[in-house]
Order: sequence, then C-alpha cells, then structure tokens
Amino acid sequence: MDYPNDQHPGAPVRAGVPDHGRIPKYYAVKTHIAALLGELGEGGLLPTERDLAERYAVSRETIRQALRELLLEGRLRRLGRGTVVAGPKLEQPLALASYTEGVRRQGLRPGRSLTTLDRFPCPEPLAREIGVERGEPVWHLERVLLADDERMGLESTYVPVARVPHLDSDFDPDSSFYSYLRDRLGIVFGAADERIETVLATPREALLIGTPPALPMILLHRVSRDGEGRRLERVRTLFRGDRFSFTTHLG
Amino acid sequence: MDYPNDQHPGAPVRAGVPDHGRIPKYYAVKTHIAALLGELGEGGLLPTERDLAERYAVSRETIRQALRELLLEGRLRRLGRGTVVAGPKLEQPLALASYTEGVRRQGLRPGRSLTTLDRFPCPEPLAREIGVERGEPVWHLERVLLADDERMGLESTYVPVARVPHLDSDFDPDSSFYSYLRDRLGIVFGAADERIETVLATPREALLIGTPPALPMILLHRVSRDGEGRRLERVRTLFRGDRFSFTTHLG
Repeated sequence: MDYPNDQHPGAPVRAGVPDHGRIPKYYAVKTHIAALLGELGEGGLLPTERDLAERYAVSRETIRQALRELLLEGRLRRLGRGTVVAGPKLEQPLALASYTEGVRRQGLRPGRSLTTLDRFPCPEPLAREIGVERGEPVWHLERVLLADDERMGLESTYVPVARVPHLDSDFDPDSSFYSYLRDRLGIVFGAADERIETVLATPREALLIGTPPALPMILLHRVSRDGEGRRLERVRTLFRGDRFSFTTHLG
Repeated sequence: MDYPNDQHPGAPVRAGVPDHGRIPKYYAVKTHIAALLGELGEGGLLPTERDLAERYAVSRETIRQALRELLLEGRLRRLGRGTVVAGPKLEQPLALASYTEGVRRQGLRPGRSLTTLDRFPCPEPLAREIGVERGEPVWHLERVLLADDERMGLESTYVPVARVPHLDSDFDPDSSFYSYLRDRLGIVFGAADERIETVLATPREALLIGTPPALPMILLHRVSRDGEGRRLERVRTLFRGDRFSFTTHLG
C-alpha cells in the first residue's frame, strides 16, 4: 500500500521518500516535525530548536535545516521569538479582479504601502507592451501589498502618463488603482494576458517584503487592455510563495 | 533614473539592489554573471568556476552560490560537465488541454515514463474529490513528464477504477491519458478547478525528475469533471520551476 489513508490528496507520494529509502537526516526529521504540526494545529507553538534536537536525537543544525524548509514552504511562521504552525496559503483567483477584491474575499483587510512613484521616458521593450512610442513618459508605481498589515508582496505597475496624467496628485497610493481608474477616469479593464512563474526574491525585494532572501516567490506578469482593446498597463507582481496560491476555473 | 533603458519589463526593479546599496558579495557577483549571460547568448558556455573566481576576484564558494541561484532560476543549465546559458522557460497554457498539447505547441516532443500504476481502496479525503464512496477502488497512475527526452515534471492521476476499468491492460502509459479517455472510452472533459503554488521538491521527486533536492517547483492541483459534470479525476502535477511558466488569458 503506497497510499496512506490519512494522506491529503495533494501531498507528495510516499511522503517524498524514494523507493531505496535513503534520505538525508534533516529530511527524516522534517517528516517527523511535519506530523507534529498536524497534532499541534494552526497557531500551535513549536517546541524550541533545543527541545526538538533532544527529542529526535540530532544536532541543532539538522533541526534548523528541517525548519528552514518548512518555513520556505509556508507550513511554519515566525511569531515574535517563537515559531508557530501556519494556516493554509491564501487563495488568489486568477481573474481580472484586483488584489483588493481577492484579499477581501478571504476576510482579510487589503492595504498597500508606496515605495516608488516616478516618471521616466519609456524604453523600447516596455513601449511595445504598453502601446506607446519610445521616449513617451511612463509612470512607475511600486507598492508593497499588505493583508491585515502583514507584507505579502510587491507590485510594480507601468502605465503611460498620457492615460493617467494626475497619478502623482490625485491618487491615494494606499487605495485600489483599478477602482481609481474606473471611478475617476472611467477606464475599465477588458482583457489581460498573464504569465506565472516561480523566482527567488532579490535582496531588495526580500528587504521590502520582509522575507528571507532567496525565498521562492510567485511572480505574476500581466499586460492589460482597456474595454476598447487598447493596451493599458504592464504589471509585475511578486507574491510570497509561502503565503499564496492561485486558483482558476477552466470551463 | 531607476529604469535602465535596456531593462526587460519583467526584470526586478534596480536589479534587486536595495536603496542602501548593501548586498551580499555573492549577489553582486550574480548580477555580473547575469549580464555575462546576455552577452554569451542561449547555449553559450560559461567560463569555469576557477576562471569566474579570478575574473571577479572572489572565492570559488562565492561563485558557486551565485551559480546555484542562477541554476535554480533556470537561467543556467548543466550540460555534460559544463554549464551553459539556458533558453527561456517553456510556457504552458492553463487550459483544459493536456500536457501533450502544450509541449507540442512549443515544437517539442512530449513523452512520459511510468513510475507507478496501482489500485487501492479510496481513502476519505480523496473520495470527496473524485466523487466515489470511501473504499471503492481507485487507480494511481504516476508518470515522469518528458519533453524531447528531458525530464520536466512528475504527474499523479487518481481516477476511479469504475470509470477506467482496464487502465492496467489497454492503456499505453507513454501516451496521453486524455486522448485515451476520449478515443477509447468516449469521456470528454467538461471543466476543471486548478490551484497553483510553489513547493520544494522532495528527495523522491528530485530523484525521479533528476533535479537538485529543494529546487523550487510549480505544483498544479487539478480536479476535473467530465462533459456531464460528474467528478472524474484528481491530478497533482509537479513542474520544474526552472523550466516552466504558465500563461492564461483573462477576458
């Protein structure tokens, strides 16, 4: 029997242990700790590194390596000086709807914190994506994405100044850009092409989002068009890989 | 100017360097090597670790750390005993279409290699997802996914034996399961719910796919229904995070 009855359908086959049965020591410890997380339940406080090292009769370095993977995967999180069992990842629908709506739907309070707002002459590769001539002025709006005040990601929006001339004076950067476009400028979204991949956080991104450097992130590229089919914006959104998953319905 | 003219629109802002300008030494070297990759072009052979260490006047350990991140991100790949500049990630559409179609569309030859085919009594959590009673027999079909003979991922399909009674005798595991369902059993897909996240490869998965352990992977969960809306299968597909991205059109 290779399918234990209590296994979640999305879990790795044979708990990730190869047929030959040889695994690194830290990984054996990781599977034990993962089972312990199930017993502790969401929010439960993990024993200290020292206690875990004693319990499994391994070095603290081995415990640290196991905990690091569980942290990167979002199954544990730091809370003050302790480490607690994390809840499930947030589920963000792949849809024209904004980050704001996705976070609200899960009962959390969305927020954004401005890091960059400047304008520059559009370089060639970007010009093609947002449908302007090279050299035309473009806004770069960069914000840290929040949910219940926790930093969740980092979003860069590039939009022609001609489309949004007063972005620097009449847009509240802690509000939804999509609501601003719709309510103030009458611009609605018609379609978007998205590409999703996994990347490692750069030092700058890790600092802004408050994650360990090289944490695997989900990177979402989006090129949007307005309701008339005109190119509108180019967005690069980085989401914490340990906190987000994305859902889609194919019909 | 924080937007260099030759920057790709999807690249990290300020090449990932924080405003305070302090970055780990390996990361500075990584940005230099990344620029070198652009000059070498796809398939170009990277200088040896020793040569790079001399060129940038750092230790070989520092070079190794930089190369490891570039490998994890899929910007480099090992070829024989050398390291070459990788091509862009494959783009797989998020669609009801199969892996087979997605790979063919990019001019590559899809393949699969069987690792597991067995039947077991369905446990509770899986039973809910595929719409059978607990204890009813279920197939587990697990295959390594190939493109031009390169290992790209690992797919586990769980499907009720009642729907596909002769899977073990009249299905060629190196062929498309979806074509088999359609052509031999007249079963078509009606809809699917997918969830996409990033996870670390387990030792078993890394061994089967031939990737370094703990390489960030893209994990796709799928629950499909047939044309009549009946639950049909539960799929867990792991794709190499360094080789795949996923695209979707939102309208």
